Amino acid sequence: NPSATQHCLNCVCVCVCVCVCVCVCVCVCVCTGCRYVSKAAAKTQLEFEYNGPSMKTEVPGPRSKELTKQLGEMQNVGAINFFCNYEESRGNYLVDVDGNRMLDYTDPLYSYWLVHRSPLFLLSAFVNRPALGIMPPENFPEKLAESLLSVAPSGMSRVQTMACGSCSNENAYKAMFIWYRNKERGHNIPSDEDMSSCMINQSPGCPDLSILSFMGGFHGRTMGCLATTHSKAIHKLDVPSFDWPIAPFPKLKYPLEEFTRENAQEEARCLEEVEDLIVQWRQKGRPVAGIVIEPIQAEGGDNHATPDFFKKLRNIARKHGSAFHVDEVQTGGGTTGKFWAHEHWGMDDPADIVSFSKKMLTGGFYHKDELQAYRIFNTWMGDPSKNLFLAEVLNVIRRENLLEEVTRSGKTLLQGLYQLQDQYPNLLSSARGQGTFCAIDIRDDATRNSIILKARDKGVLLGGCGDRSIRFRPALVFKEHHVHMFLNVFSDVLAEHN
Amino acid sequence: NPSATQHCLNCVCVCVCVCVCVCVCVCVCVCTGCRYVSKAAAKTQLEFEYNGPSMKTEVPGPRSKELTKQLGEMQNVGAINFFCNYEESRGNYLVDVDGNRMLDYTDPLYSYWLVHRSPLFLLSAFVNRPALGIMPPENFPEKLAESLLSVAPSGMSRVQTMACGSCSNENAYKAMFIWYRNKERGHNIPSDEDMSSCMINQSPGCPDLSILSFMGGFHGRTMGCLATTHSKAIHKLDVPSFDWPIAPFPKLKYPLEEFTRENAQEEARCLEEVEDLIVQWRQKGRPVAGIVIEPIQAEGGDNHATPDFFKKLRNIARKHGSAFHVDEVQTGGGTTGKFWAHEHWGMDDPADIVSFSKKMLTGGFYHKDELQAYRIFNTWMGDPSKNLFLAEVLNVIRRENLLEEVTRSGKTLLQGLYQLQDQYPNLLSSARGQGTFCAIDIRDDATRNSIILKARDKGVLLGGCGDRSIRFRPALVFKEHHVHMFLNVFSDVLAEHN
Repeated sequence: NPSATQHCLNCVCVCVCVCVCVCVCVCVCVCTGCRYVSKAAAKTQLEFEYNGPSMKTEVPGPRSKELTKQLGEMQNVGAINFFCNYEESRGNYLVDVDGNRMLDYTDPLYSYWLVHRSPLFLLSAFVNRPALGIMPPENFPEKLAESLLSVAPSGMSRVQTMACGSCSNENAYKAMFIWYRNKERGHNIPSDEDMSSCMINQSPGCPDLSILSFMGGFHGRTMGCLATTHSKAIHKLDVPSFDWPIAPFPKLKYPLEEFTRENAQEEARCLEEVEDLIVQWRQKGRPVAGIVIEPIQAEGGDNHATPDFFKKLRNIARKHGSAFHVDEVQTGGGTTGKFWAHEHWGMDDPADIVSFSKKMLTGGFYHKDELQAYRIFNTWMGDPSKNLFLAEVLNVIRRENLLEEVTRSGKTLLQGLYQLQDQYPNLLSSARGQGTFCAIDIRDDATRNSIILKARDKGVLLGGCGDRSIRFRPALVFKEHHVHMFLNVFSDVLAEHN
Repeated sequence: NPSATQHCLNCVCVCVCVCVCVCVCVCVCVCTGCRYVSKAAAKTQLEFEYNGPSMKTEVPGPRSKELTKQLGEMQNVGAINFFCNYEESRGNYLVDVDGNRMLDYTDPLYSYWLVHRSPLFLLSAFVNRPALGIMPPENFPEKLAESLLSVAPSGMSRVQTMACGSCSNENAYKAMFIWYRNKERGHNIPSDEDMSSCMINQSPGCPDLSILSFMGGFHGRTMGCLATTHSKAIHKLDVPSFDWPIAPFPKLKYPLEEFTRENAQEEARCLEEVEDLIVQWRQKGRPVAGIVIEPIQAEGGDNHATPDFFKKLRNIARKHGSAFHVDEVQTGGGTTGKFWAHEHWGMDDPADIVSFSKKMLTGGFYHKDELQAYRIFNTWMGDPSKNLFLAEVLNVIRRENLLEEVTRSGKTLLQGLYQLQDQYPNLLSSARGQGTFCAIDIRDDATRNSIILKARDKGVLLGGCGDRSIRFRPALVFKEHHVHMFLNVFSDVLAEHN
């Protein structure tokens, strides 16, 4: 039952604070002339919270500063106020990692006010959905290092988490636009005209820049992403878009190693077109700030290209001053037998940006240092509970050597598909794959759909992609005995369609 | 140790399947002429999974169909294949709600293959991040009804969940564009020209439609949202945008009830401008498909307008055939004293679309039946674990009558702010608020920022908004005794700045 009399610092009045047990709190200003006079207000019920603020250090305190420095090596920290201890926070009080306890009137999104109100809310990491960009939890840098950064692509040590695949690509595009404009300006200080024109959606503040994408590509369904998505009309129909360049993606013959000369010609044709488009769009005043591409066009029909194609494309991007963005939302996470599909290209500096989602349990993108932009921001910026899970998923992948398993099962699967293709030449063609990320073309769309349904009736779930392909997307624990189980069912279904 | 000899259905060969305990599975086709021949493949370790597919019903089975029907009354189910039992799924096997067990090669995003591999993965609801749009878990309709739909705005019984606030608004815009184009066509069947032109980002497939927004508004940071965001230049700078109309938001005098005549004139001016812009943009070939507005412009400076303004705006939208989208990402969830801020307008039919995020723990939007679009789709479409939490948050709000508390605390807070404003007329002005969603203007930007920092040093976290406002955003458990604690600290800080 503390009772205290305090002399105020800046005037002559005296504040008398009397706390009677935890239930009644009375604050009275004796001198009413120069201060706000608070009224007695009884707490109406036992609150599971603290009795008042308690400040131990300046804010941000030393621990927050240390953590901000740590996180600053992994991602942009421009907007971070301080780090929080959500386990100790409750009711109206946010506790930071330096033990400062503050009344929080900044729109608490997380649910620490709910802890103790329901058993469901006891697991702080899963309940609290902190504003990651402003007030991350203490273990965020550590978990980021253990999870996403432990599998960072070559040449990249920075990652920005995001809520889903579309958000990841949208924000990656924004990072490329900002980077490009800073290059054009020669510095990152916008002019007054930039600042005023952007408020009304006009250039130069909202510049006429573009992203070059590929026919058949899929990069998401928000409006920026949609302008680079060209796999199915149904995704894009009725939504306004941007006048951005669209290059042809190589249409190769499979198996790639049997058609090296034709495929090289086709890839050269596409690369030439890419350069032409970059020049054309520069001339029409919409320079290409970035190029976005999937290592394997997934939604568009599992279209592959050779490492040589990607190396040359990377060089074209460099030559023309465009950023190079590899979208691994579908290909990332190990199914190609390497953690990232672009690792098959064997490059030290494969990209400026690599985006991910789906199997990574959280969205986001890796980027090179120079593409850091403190204006890339979203309230949630992902969800730290997903990083906890991802760290554990990665442990399992390493412990069980799942990438090797995927490579082994993938070879067996592709071998089986080749065999079936020989057996049913009128039905099947173009078996292709990397790891277990495999596909095969079916005679026509109707047969493809019938095969998928018949396989489902026999207990095998398959998906379609492109116009008439079936794609195989097993989990990372797809072993050789599963391959055989699958091939037998598939063979039965094919026999019904021959 | 089952052993079975099966006659195949379509040819003369015989399959012999021998399973020796759980570790070895041998499948051999005796006749090798017409079938794929699988090889013996020993399981390398004890797998915590099933031994093979097992089909009980057609897919989707009766339970899936029943659940699809239930969910169909709440949201679009066009893409749903069937409902899953993630608790029973493991390894390569997905189990549906009808007990069908299938080898899953459709890109399992969820982590049921990880269950049993780490204690962290035991809580299925939190680990599995299902592709909600295709294969939702069994309790999804029930949890949606208990959570989001139990607080659906007036006139709306459908909701689409999304991953974050920006995705929610992006997809709401898309729903409005699709609705508008279907109206223009008179049906929802696109022409061949629509289908081919949209693939290359061109009209009519990607039509020149627009969304009308308000100066000072904030609707998110992805490219579609950004074209309607006009609160701070720094959000928009360097990002390409759309030529869409931007109307003035009323600049009212506070307290609203003391300036009714001037405020009504200002609102009439803005409404007139809205109609002019709709006509202008129609004339320049970019018709306004939708109008988006916040009930209180939050990021832009806590700018209020009267119910009369919103009623008239709603009528203008109706008159010109534009959809009316109320963005409650910041205002929703109870802080204004009603669950949705638009409830203060007292309308039966307040909007065509209401979007939400933040306090709702998940993103998404409610919409009227006619704005349903099966092409609104995202792999995750939110996260069902957040609906579990939201249902519990809503229970707490009801059990503890938190909306009444918010109304009571909000009145006391606003009264205190009025008093301080009288006491410091050179420092403070325009105190305003609804519930605890309050703000006050400070003399200038520098003083505002200094006050925020000084309050933090005394253990009170405040945020800024607009050019020189401080906004109050307490949690829903902000009681009257917290108001007094806050006002005393704030009074001390103001005294230092007078």
